[in-house]
Amino acid sequence: MGLIVQKYGGSSVKDAEHVMNVARRIVETYDAGNDVVVAVSAQGDTTDDLIEKAKEINPNASKREMDMLLATGEQISISLLAMAIEKIGRPVISLTGWQAGFKTDAVYSNARISRIDAERLKNELDKKKIVIVAGFQGLNKYDDITTLGRGGSDTSAVALAATLGADLCEIYTDVDGVYTADPRFVKNAKKLDDISYDEMLELASLGANVLHNRSVEMAKKYHVNMCVRSSLNKNEGTFVKEVNKVEKMLVRGVARDNDVARISICGIEDAPGRAFTVFSLISQKDIGVDVILQSIGNNGTKDISFTVKESDLEKTIEILESNKEVIGAKEIKYTSDVSKVSIVGAGMVNNAGVATKMFEALYNAHININMISTSEIKISVLVAQNDSERAVNAIHDKFLLD
Amino acid sequence: MGLIVQKYGGSSVKDAEHVMNVARRIVETYDAGNDVVVAVSAQGDTTDDLIEKAKEINPNASKREMDMLLATGEQISISLLAMAIEKIGRPVISLTGWQAGFKTDAVYSNARISRIDAERLKNELDKKKIVIVAGFQGLNKYDDITTLGRGGSDTSAVALAATLGADLCEIYTDVDGVYTADPRFVKNAKKLDDISYDEMLELASLGANVLHNRSVEMAKKYHVNMCVRSSLNKNEGTFVKEVNKVEKMLVRGVARDNDVARISICGIEDAPGRAFTVFSLISQKDIGVDVILQSIGNNGTKDISFTVKESDLEKTIEILESNKEVIGAKEIKYTSDVSKVSIVGAGMVNNAGVATKMFEALYNAHININMISTSEIKISVLVAQNDSERAVNAIHDKFLLD
Repeated sequence: MGLIVQKYGGSSVKDAEHVMNVARRIVETYDAGNDVVVAVSAQGDTTDDLIEKAKEINPNASKREMDMLLATGEQISISLLAMAIEKIGRPVISLTGWQAGFKTDAVYSNARISRIDAERLKNELDKKKIVIVAGFQGLNKYDDITTLGRGGSDTSAVALAATLGADLCEIYTDVDGVYTADPRFVKNAKKLDDISYDEMLELASLGANVLHNRSVEMAKKYHVNMCVRSSLNKNEGTFVKEVNKVEKMLVRGVARDNDVARISICGIEDAPGRAFTVFSLISQKDIGVDVILQSIGNNGTKDISFTVKESDLEKTIEILESNKEVIGAKEIKYTSDVSKVSIVGAGMVNNAGVATKMFEALYNAHININMISTSEIKISVLVAQNDSERAVNAIHDKFLLD
Repeated sequence: MGLIVQKYGGSSVKDAEHVMNVARRIVETYDAGNDVVVAVSAQGDTTDDLIEKAKEINPNASKREMDMLLATGEQISISLLAMAIEKIGRPVISLTGWQAGFKTDAVYSNARISRIDAERLKNELDKKKIVIVAGFQGLNKYDDITTLGRGGSDTSAVALAATLGADLCEIYTDVDGVYTADPRFVKNAKKLDDISYDEMLELASLGANVLHNRSVEMAKKYHVNMCVRSSLNKNEGTFVKEVNKVEKMLVRGVARDNDVARISICGIEDAPGRAFTVFSLISQKDIGVDVILQSIGNNGTKDISFTVKESDLEKTIEILESNKEVIGAKEIKYTSDVSKVSIVGAGMVNNAGVATKMFEALYNAHININMISTSEIKISVLVAQNDSERAVNAIHDKFLLD
């Protein structure tokens, strides 16, 4: 008995049958004596369909009007879900983002939640109502509707849990929880019972695709107990929380990210300030750079290699080519035929042998390593995209096979 | 040059092409130097599709949640229309009902506008923006979304025109204006250049289907100059305004309403209070009664006949049957195979020959008259549904053929 926040994604409410299924789960939690607040995404392909409608009229529509359009997706979900709960016969009310008090900054299509004015939410809970809130959306200081960008509904749920002091924030999805590797191609992948915020953050940013980073960052900041579980079965799921140090495993998971492109700037004069020039040019255009590697100078020149998201590749090359002289580079090479494969685990920080073991696994599988990057709780390598599935399996078997 | 409010119905914005067409019309008005505020309905079948979605989940959903759902229809239209105007390159902003300041009473699905807090509207107009407002919707005192019921977007447009002191309120539809009779089956029907509020009110309530009564009532109350015209051509349309008495024609139009059922309560004791008993029972259930006719007492009994909307027939019969003894009726008869055919014209009030001429037209066409009802500016007769088209043509030719 307590206050539970639940979040259901678009695939969990994609049609009438799924909406009824979700309604029954919510009512079960409510009937067990809990207060229940639910954040919901737009149904199935609704958001994509709306984007399509907009593009047909104006491919360069303002983000303000796009947000106005897209926010209808969640408004449809919440009303339908509320109707399903009404049918089961429990008191319920749906609230849009602005009705639920979500205040955001003014960055349309990628707004950040600044606060939740929870008065109405609390009033409805006091009336013993199940409260269904539109995820992904809020209101800025101009009283205009904003949307939160990718993973926005997860963030909405965690913000609700933090503001209301919820006992648990359950993120319902179509997988059973967080796995040691992607179960679609690693047959020995195992579900984790729990994982720390930091490990989850690294896994999310490395392409595990279960939770969006912004939601995990917020959960960590406000100490929200999160749980990732399936809306299709009653399995326990994976808890995301401050895991006790002694319980920590060496390596918690292996992640792969195919949305990576590698760029090499060759033959730069080996003089101070060159790296600064390159990366200030790129960051001015809001392009995020990941793994960076600089060769040791040789014959007065050096090479700088780094990775960006595949969608940023074209723009980055344009910037570099048009500034080739400023940078003083001989040649710019690039490929998007690479994957980043990473192991994550808070326990590896004090264990020098982890990297060696990872490289050994790849060597045994005859996989060539392109670039290497390490942090306190992760080691990433760049490999050819073709090799990536084999790489994940080899590393997973080495570290995580019982 | 002035302030123009325009309203576009669902068929005028049903797809991308129609949205662009409407956008061009709006921009023309704006480019002519006018301030422009536009009220829009949901696209084509959107509202029906949403109702279908709801029914699949819960046919008895609360009206509060239905309004939450249906309001998304107009929100989609306004954002798409704003995007289309952005594409043409004019400053524009879309506003939902609550953003535009529409305050309503708390009657979900059939709310009345109580006021418009126009501060934001005026600010946007001061910035020389075209303002696109979601019709059909508002916000009640609980900060919940309400919808205005049938013809709601027309009412939204007139309320905007009244609040902002607009010079003209243009209602765009798929017909050229108000006709002397339904042009679909009266080949001689002619478009009227203008019509008075009262005449328009009678025509609307009698089944002319061009404007909803609530919008005309509001236009009359606040002296809003309205104009009904087609969104598909540049024809002038029909102006609805206080027409100068001397200009008034005897008969302005002939209307037909098939949504009528006739009920007769036979053999009621001829004593005071019987009619009151009958109609208080019916009005308690929010059923509107139209034409009422009571036979002169005969042998101590009398008959009462009246009409209701076809959709109210079943409920009315139930009420009467279950109260047969209280009413003291021998028999209750009913049929929905009737139509109401009416002539409307402010000029007829002082002209005794009008009714005679109407009956003569029907007699010549061998059409039997069921019931007759008259008011200051209209005469209605009930005829068999089969005869109704012929009746309208006969009356139209008698009065309105040049």
